[in-house]
Amino acid sequence: MLDAGLIAHLGVITGEWPMVVPTVYGFTADTLYLHGSVASQSLNTAGTPVCVTITLTDGLVLARSVFEHTINYRSAMIYGQPRLVTDPDERLAGLRCITEHVAPGQWDYARQPSRKELAAVRLLALSLDEASVKIRTGPPDDGDSPDPALGLWAGELPVATTWQQPIPDPVLAVSRICPQAAMRNCPEAASLVTERG
Amino acid sequence: MLDAGLIAHLGVITGEWPMVVPTVYGFTADTLYLHGSVASQSLNTAGTPVCVTITLTDGLVLARSVFEHTINYRSAMIYGQPRLVTDPDERLAGLRCITEHVAPGQWDYARQPSRKELAAVRLLALSLDEASVKIRTGPPDDGDSPDPALGLWAGELPVATTWQQPIPDPVLAVSRICPQAAMRNCPEAASLVTERG
Repeated sequence: MLDAGLIAHLGVITGEWPMVVPTVYGFTADTLYLHGSVASQSLNTAGTPVCVTITLTDGLVLARSVFEHTINYRSAMIYGQPRLVTDPDERLAGLRCITEHVAPGQWDYARQPSRKELAAVRLLALSLDEASVKIRTGPPDDGDSPDPALGLWAGELPVATTWQQPIPDPVLAVSRICPQAAMRNCPEAASLVTERG
Repeated sequence: MLDAGLIAHLGVITGEWPMVVPTVYGFTADTLYLHGSVASQSLNTAGTPVCVTITLTDGLVLARSVFEHTINYRSAMIYGQPRLVTDPDERLAGLRCITEHVAPGQWDYARQPSRKELAAVRLLALSLDEASVKIRTGPPDDGDSPDPALGLWAGELPVATTWQQPIPDPVLAVSRICPQAAMRNCPEAASLVTERG
């Protein structure tokens, strides 16, 4: 589930208010990594309670009654008090982990962070110990109620999230070979692998 | 933006912890509506501070440097203290608004809620007065840095969310005409309009 998601919603408390911020993430077997600017309010939360929720929407469930309409989804909620990562090796590993989750192959393909860039980034590590997952799949739940006698259509309307054809930066002087991360699930992208500069 | 989204992430404070819960929503010109079970902890928040965030992920931005990698997205954050809706007419209108946002046409197509079902649902109304929107679009930001000299590919990898072919509930005794909500963006679904029962 964490693997299939792209962004998480990070919930923190600022003053008396909750704040929910979308953010990318990476993870290992036991740790979720989040990063952002050192100026970011939502990332200035090491040691304070947070809730990170990752939701995948799989489809719409159309039942015979409005009341039984629902969503097929997978959702993970992770609670904890994140740790500010300061060890240089773990910082690099954590940032690599985030990059490789979002854009596989790019950590080695693109230029890695300079010392100055690293200093501008805050990295948080959150244990995956306190996590719960909710999943709903399948057809509507009113198939064995009296409602099917209404004679209405019922079922699922799946939703799919797919990568599209890459769009080269207009300032690219010459066409370049698309890196692996730009060609996920997109065989048509092979047509962009032309005119090596 | 609210129109294009399907689910929101509702952030509330429970005790000392933030909680972030995915939920469907509906909206009018000035109000966001959220609903759920009367047993739901996250919906038992009338009069308390909440943050509702709706995020649309539009693509991945692949830059020359890892540091400049980012996401193209649209995100709305709505802050407020929701009002518990008790007026019967507004309750029906709010629930209709949510259903019609998620599954257009279903409020009139499917069976509307019974008195017992209505009693099991809590409806919250949140003013859209305190809302902020963030949007990132376009190519990477490092086109005018020294990094293009590295000769790497850079650009956008768009992501699209699309409805797929409807899956009829297996317990449907006979094929039924698919309702409008099941056929959004899915011309192939016309092939399911067969064998009217």
